Amino acid sequence: MITAKSEVQIRQQLTLVALGKAPADLVLHVGKLLDTATRTWSSAQEIVIKGDRIAYVGPIGSWTGACETIVKRPDLMAIPGLGEVHKHIESSHLTPEWEAALVLPRGNTWTCEASHEFSNVRGSRTVEFWLEARKQGSPLKIFPLPGSAVPPTAYEHGGGYLGYDEQKDFIGNSMMVAGLDEVMDWPAVWNPENASHKRLWGMIEATFEARGVVEGHAAGLKDLPTINAFAAAGLASDHEAWTAEEFWDKLTHGLFIELRPHSMPEVLQGLIEKGLGDWSQIAFTTDDRSASETLEKGATDYNVRLAIQSGLKPEIAIQCVTINPARHMRLTPWVGSLTPGRFADIVLLSDLESFEIAEVWADGRQVSEGKRFTDPVPEINWPDWARNTVQVGGTLSAADFAIPAKAGRETMSAAVLRPFHWEEDFLTYELPVKDGLVQRDVSRNITKFAIVDRFSGTKSLSKMFWAGTGPSTPDCALASSLAHDKHNVWCVGSSDEAMAMAVNALSEIGGGWALVRDNKVVATVRYEVAGLMSSRSAEALDADMQKLYAEGAKIDWMFEPSSSPRWWAGFPERLAFATLTCAPWRWVLVAPAEGIPEGLVNVATGETHPVVW
Amino acid sequence: MITAKSEVQIRQQLTLVALGKAPADLVLHVGKLLDTATRTWSSAQEIVIKGDRIAYVGPIGSWTGACETIVKRPDLMAIPGLGEVHKHIESSHLTPEWEAALVLPRGNTWTCEASHEFSNVRGSRTVEFWLEARKQGSPLKIFPLPGSAVPPTAYEHGGGYLGYDEQKDFIGNSMMVAGLDEVMDWPAVWNPENASHKRLWGMIEATFEARGVVEGHAAGLKDLPTINAFAAAGLASDHEAWTAEEFWDKLTHGLFIELRPHSMPEVLQGLIEKGLGDWSQIAFTTDDRSASETLEKGATDYNVRLAIQSGLKPEIAIQCVTINPARHMRLTPWVGSLTPGRFADIVLLSDLESFEIAEVWADGRQVSEGKRFTDPVPEINWPDWARNTVQVGGTLSAADFAIPAKAGRETMSAAVLRPFHWEEDFLTYELPVKDGLVQRDVSRNITKFAIVDRFSGTKSLSKMFWAGTGPSTPDCALASSLAHDKHNVWCVGSSDEAMAMAVNALSEIGGGWALVRDNKVVATVRYEVAGLMSSRSAEALDADMQKLYAEGAKIDWMFEPSSSPRWWAGFPERLAFATLTCAPWRWVLVAPAEGIPEGLVNVATGETHPVVW
Repeated sequence: MITAKSEVQIRQQLTLVALGKAPADLVLHVGKLLDTATRTWSSAQEIVIKGDRIAYVGPIGSWTGACETIVKRPDLMAIPGLGEVHKHIESSHLTPEWEAALVLPRGNTWTCEASHEFSNVRGSRTVEFWLEARKQGSPLKIFPLPGSAVPPTAYEHGGGYLGYDEQKDFIGNSMMVAGLDEVMDWPAVWNPENASHKRLWGMIEATFEARGVVEGHAAGLKDLPTINAFAAAGLASDHEAWTAEEFWDKLTHGLFIELRPHSMPEVLQGLIEKGLGDWSQIAFTTDDRSASETLEKGATDYNVRLAIQSGLKPEIAIQCVTINPARHMRLTPWVGSLTPGRFADIVLLSDLESFEIAEVWADGRQVSEGKRFTDPVPEINWPDWARNTVQVGGTLSAADFAIPAKAGRETMSAAVLRPFHWEEDFLTYELPVKDGLVQRDVSRNITKFAIVDRFSGTKSLSKMFWAGTGPSTPDCALASSLAHDKHNVWCVGSSDEAMAMAVNALSEIGGGWALVRDNKVVATVRYEVAGLMSSRSAEALDADMQKLYAEGAKIDWMFEPSSSPRWWAGFPERLAFATLTCAPWRWVLVAPAEGIPEGLVNVATGETHPVVW
Repeated sequence: MITAKSEVQIRQQLTLVALGKAPADLVLHVGKLLDTATRTWSSAQEIVIKGDRIAYVGPIGSWTGACETIVKRPDLMAIPGLGEVHKHIESSHLTPEWEAALVLPRGNTWTCEASHEFSNVRGSRTVEFWLEARKQGSPLKIFPLPGSAVPPTAYEHGGGYLGYDEQKDFIGNSMMVAGLDEVMDWPAVWNPENASHKRLWGMIEATFEARGVVEGHAAGLKDLPTINAFAAAGLASDHEAWTAEEFWDKLTHGLFIELRPHSMPEVLQGLIEKGLGDWSQIAFTTDDRSASETLEKGATDYNVRLAIQSGLKPEIAIQCVTINPARHMRLTPWVGSLTPGRFADIVLLSDLESFEIAEVWADGRQVSEGKRFTDPVPEINWPDWARNTVQVGGTLSAADFAIPAKAGRETMSAAVLRPFHWEEDFLTYELPVKDGLVQRDVSRNITKFAIVDRFSGTKSLSKMFWAGTGPSTPDCALASSLAHDKHNVWCVGSSDEAMAMAVNALSEIGGGWALVRDNKVVATVRYEVAGLMSSRSAEALDADMQKLYAEGAKIDWMFEPSSSPRWWAGFPERLAFATLTCAPWRWVLVAPAEGIPEGLVNVATGETHPVVW
């Protein structure tokens, strides 16, 4: 842990080592070394290491001190450990110690953890949770940013409440806390009438006070007045833009840009064409990426590789994951450059253009060889508050998912949502009634969707009809405890029995995924920590995910194109994001709450509506 | 004053103005506008202002809100107000309200005040003093950095003591305090035996804790081990390098570079030749410049002009005094770019290449036209603690400056210093004795130098012989209360009578300068605030200084070249810096202190020596 007191001790010692007045632990000789301040290489350098820090960098033989251990890598090129400026480790679905094992061999040695997800499950434990693995020796430096949207809006509950007092404690008690995670509830920012306005500005105030960074999330905010307003509010960054035009408008209005791979080639090309003269306000970042996808494509290294392939100079691409994000996050004393005082986190490349990583060093020791993590993974016994987080309150039955019709009606009007329903209003369908219950209509791609409260333990759930998603095969259901932002349990199913079965199976494993086919549970994947992450290797988790996908492939899934560029046909994994309650969402289904008994609410206005009438 | 609470209120309002939902105070139309993030210009822009901040920037007519006042400057080019990343306003010798009047028309709208001088005179009042003018409406934003060297070494006293507790209070109680001023006592940093080690690291710890910036001062530290050690200690910058080579070595070891004009042309050329690919870790700054010199050359605008003339692109030169220093000092939410939320501090250029400033706006209003400051200067009644700081303790006489010989000796050995005596040892001369007193020797350029304690009020002083400085004309003396670092009173004179007379005259005016010729006081310049600054216009002060110089020119001054590139023949104004006690100084004359009764001490080792023997 970084504390002011320990920094003083460490730096007093490093100073003596640099001067040759105290011994070092190890000297690493490298063939080339990139300086991220000047964007230049120097040859035949030595990196002198004491503890987990760099004490000295210079031409081989220039250090005047004594050291017994010299390691030589004359054929490799040293660059600083790569950083993620905005990442939800929860989206890897690995706990921090296993995230470390996955991403370190891929160059990622430090991460600004955007704790939107975990904070929504166990708000008060946010910082404690993210620091635990490092306390137990994990070489990944996690700098947590507590979620700003806890609750995401005033319409969701459970899991915690983070306001001024909580953020003051978080950021005041740990120098590892870099700021406030992405402010995404734009109506709550600008609109004084919004029910979350005061809470959210309280967190912003506490972050300003402690000189932390207030991160932004400006999804869908593309017009100049809104971009200006966003910057005026003091939100320091955006990672949600998709086009070069949008990035340019945000960059020129004072926002630090965190570019995700989704549209990186076009964006980089566009920025170069626009004559961008300075890359220092730009970083690359991952945001959300599953362990399975990381195993396939890579971690931060993938982002860098994609940037190089998109036409960016490798050295600039490297700055965008080292010095630039470190400076933005005010972490330059520790990460972002291979210079004295910083962590001895070193990525050794065998080839620059292809960004081939041969070894990664962290905390002054080698932790990987090729893709293999060679450091021991700490065995962490995650406590009850982290593990027992899916509290449905008992076994559910088909009746819990039924939507009754009014007496004597043959059809009922139903409010229907589609995934990524960015329209102003919900859709309205006339649906058939049978045995007094409103029915799905597979012929029109209408199925049922439910949100089960996993915090209250009172068997509380809301349900409605959704369009263009879910199984069309009968007696199937899919449930997950991964439901941005509040991370209740969602379930979509072609029968109420299957839905109950899926949610019950999910409860039993403490969260994750449960898939029911032919009224049988055919696959589960446990995310036993916070219902979001699993404490095991990426490979083990991926094996279960692949089994889930394989079983999922045996089901026919409805599909209709939607406003989301990432909503695709097949297994509806992205439903986890369709329950977001932040801008630009309007009508959303949330767990039943005071004043919202059926759960259907317009999160921009607070208006509610019956799900059928 | 910036506070977290007021930031919230201001930004909530700006957000509504940007969205067009609340009215603005003024809209400024400009012909071109420089974005310092992308280093690009856009044409025909409007800057929408509310209070002292920018609410909106975009093409003219794109803002949707209402405003009664529109000001049009279609022929001018807007760039952000220029910042000083490391400046001693004390060296202007103007109090902050008059400094503002001098530098604002020259583009300088914000200053990181390196409070090394004032802190050494009234340590505990540091922040209070620097914020007063702004509290009373001055448009110059002063971000004070309390002096790290108070006392400068363990061998000087009076004026205050700043350690962990004091810095914790300063930086904890005001968001205007950006960090810790230049850490210059290098032996105290690296050497645990040094008497200032604990105090200094206490200040560093308090600064780390509050996420402030620890500024460096690496004068004479040029070898790689020391540069590495300096960076390892957590010192974030240097402004003392003189060559491109030295800057390069510091830049590539993690230090932010603050380049002064002294050797700017060669340094910039050198950095370009070395292939510098990124200028984001470089700022330009003034450090010390008198009001007289600023009237002649310019303020921050001079630094920019010199950089452009040295071959740097104007846009990069502007970044080096806007976004780059703002980011280094973690002040980007307020200064460094013309973007929403920042202060409406705008420099309007009529020509880019010649960097011709037509108007300056600050706090959203026009404050200058050409070189003329058009804003009212607040009338500040500086309190006693700021004004009554030269407390010698009574009238001095010639006898106080006499250096007695041992009985019966015709000559005595004398320890002699030269200005900027960076040698390991002092010089030794055999000097004549007359009437029992050791005598000057004009034939060998040896005169007498004294330090009078201005804090204790006990008529305490030390004196010794100096070489190559001071009047060779008989019965002349020069005294000043400007004596880096401790700012006691120094006096150099060709007779003891003249020296006493000069110091007495200086006491009477509360500090500044006093010149005696033919045993008459022929010129004084009052620095009545802290003995360092005067509360009047630059022009008024300059008139007095010119009179002093004119009288000084009637005296013959000794001269010998020294190690300082800025020690020149004539009026020995730079003696004010020859009393520095920081690295690389060794032997220095300080006011008498416990264990140093004669004041001659080696500040690197603590060794003392008699001034004659």
